[in-house]
Amino acid sequence: MTRPSTDQSETSLQRLDLVQPLLLDSARRTEQALRKYMGDLAQVPPQLLEAMQYSLFAGGKRVRPALVFACGSLFDAPEVDMLPAAAAMECVHTFSLIHDDLPAMDDDDLRRGVPTNHKVFGEAMAILAGDALLSLAFQILTERVGEAMVAAAMVRELATATGPVGMIGGQVADILGETEEPTPAKVRYIHERKTAALLAASCRLGGLSGRTGQDDIRAVGEYGYHLGLAFQLADDALDATATAEQLGKRTGKDTRAGKQTMVRLAGVEATLQAADDHVQRALGAVDRYGEAAAPLKALAEFVVRRSC
Amino acid sequence: MTRPSTDQSETSLQRLDLVQPLLLDSARRTEQALRKYMGDLAQVPPQLLEAMQYSLFAGGKRVRPALVFACGSLFDAPEVDMLPAAAAMECVHTFSLIHDDLPAMDDDDLRRGVPTNHKVFGEAMAILAGDALLSLAFQILTERVGEAMVAAAMVRELATATGPVGMIGGQVADILGETEEPTPAKVRYIHERKTAALLAASCRLGGLSGRTGQDDIRAVGEYGYHLGLAFQLADDALDATATAEQLGKRTGKDTRAGKQTMVRLAGVEATLQAADDHVQRALGAVDRYGEAAAPLKALAEFVVRRSC
Repeated sequence: MTRPSTDQSETSLQRLDLVQPLLLDSARRTEQALRKYMGDLAQVPPQLLEAMQYSLFAGGKRVRPALVFACGSLFDAPEVDMLPAAAAMECVHTFSLIHDDLPAMDDDDLRRGVPTNHKVFGEAMAILAGDALLSLAFQILTERVGEAMVAAAMVRELATATGPVGMIGGQVADILGETEEPTPAKVRYIHERKTAALLAASCRLGGLSGRTGQDDIRAVGEYGYHLGLAFQLADDALDATATAEQLGKRTGKDTRAGKQTMVRLAGVEATLQAADDHVQRALGAVDRYGEAAAPLKALAEFVVRRSC
Repeated sequence: MTRPSTDQSETSLQRLDLVQPLLLDSARRTEQALRKYMGDLAQVPPQLLEAMQYSLFAGGKRVRPALVFACGSLFDAPEVDMLPAAAAMECVHTFSLIHDDLPAMDDDDLRRGVPTNHKVFGEAMAILAGDALLSLAFQILTERVGEAMVAAAMVRELATATGPVGMIGGQVADILGETEEPTPAKVRYIHERKTAALLAASCRLGGLSGRTGQDDIRAVGEYGYHLGLAFQLADDALDATATAEQLGKRTGKDTRAGKQTMVRLAGVEATLQAADDHVQRALGAVDRYGEAAAPLKALAEFVVRRSC
């Protein structure tokens, strides 16, 4: 991997110092909001609530909420509008993890070092807990119907990024790709939809909560898109190089499953280089915001550096 | 089952004559809209589109869209607002059928006389096609963000009726109930959420598309709620009495699975009587609209009579 010059390195390290408090703060705000929303669910079968909460509070890094908060803060978004967006993003993300881990999909027993949802609650409940979290995301986004313009726009962003043209389409391509030779186009298609769509949506929801214009929404969306591609590339490299202990889940499984990854196409070094290139493009997209974009820049660098 | 007096019977039969053209018209409009929405999905893996369309166009009666149109028409709703609501309801309904049929759930091989989604496309694709249809419903509802108040209110209704406090919560209770003795309270809880929530939402979305007031929304919602309970009771009776050939799916399976049904609690006759009572309450809820409610009254009677 090409090393940046010393000056850049120092800036990068200073930026990385920003990330830990930023993620902790985002996790705290998001989890508080999620607990409130879960508490509002009256008369839900307790077993369903338990299955939903098991995965929702399994110690994720809350990167998507952090993007909502960081992008929203660029435009002085009120907390009351960022919280539902952050919580909804995490509901959709958790839904996708639960369904991805199912025996019919990736068949994973372990996630973040603990048994996957279906290993604890059974397959039927895991499918339904995922379905429930996906629905709940849209319910949460429309809690404040008085702010209908913002709510409707957020629903549209999230539904599009999640659905057949977004993450779910990417997951289908990912599964189908297991029986095909990897090509750069297929890898890009999967990465764009499976990962970048939802990270870009997190940023755009942040922008929407700040009621900013289309230009700004586009800029933070582009940042999130490149961040997402960098994230997925770094993740693929990590799967090929880290130990199961480091990751809290099985590693090397992409290669075993015959997944479409850039590592298989071009090796670990080239994959990390490509990730770095996307980080640079992410930084470029928000350069216009100067110092205000420091948290976004720190997050982008964190995404690839965690794998070094 | 208590027979109504001759006068009522004649009215009922005249009303039933209304139903077939009403359902055919609703199916035609809904399917045209659905084909347009599916056509708008660019760059979706063809296998995913095929799996979604297989179940979406499997010849359902389109009762939920018919309720959207019938309730919307009461308040002169424009077609352009009823169509997304009708299409979204059908996407959510189809999602629920695909997931309910999965091996981990009801494990059904046959639906409407043809193989279930997972029998044709495999379990992973069936799960993802269901997920995609659920997301797509919310994307469709927000197509016209210019009408944000209506869109956001519709999303909220649909998400609530679908999610943990609605249909998905009912499905969980249904599965958990298989290992428990049936009680009237449990049966009611399941019927309210698994069926009535989405039928009531269809009616409320119809009302919302007509931009009518809370009083009207409540009235058509109450109609849909009682219609939903009548529908589920009649369905349970049908499962106990009809042949597989008549229904295009396995019968008698509720009893075999130990499901919570009123038939197990009180027998077929009492179940049909209870269904009839709910039809009467549904009719009462929309009585205030006089002749304009004739299609709604016809639909309510159709729902139980189809099983006689």
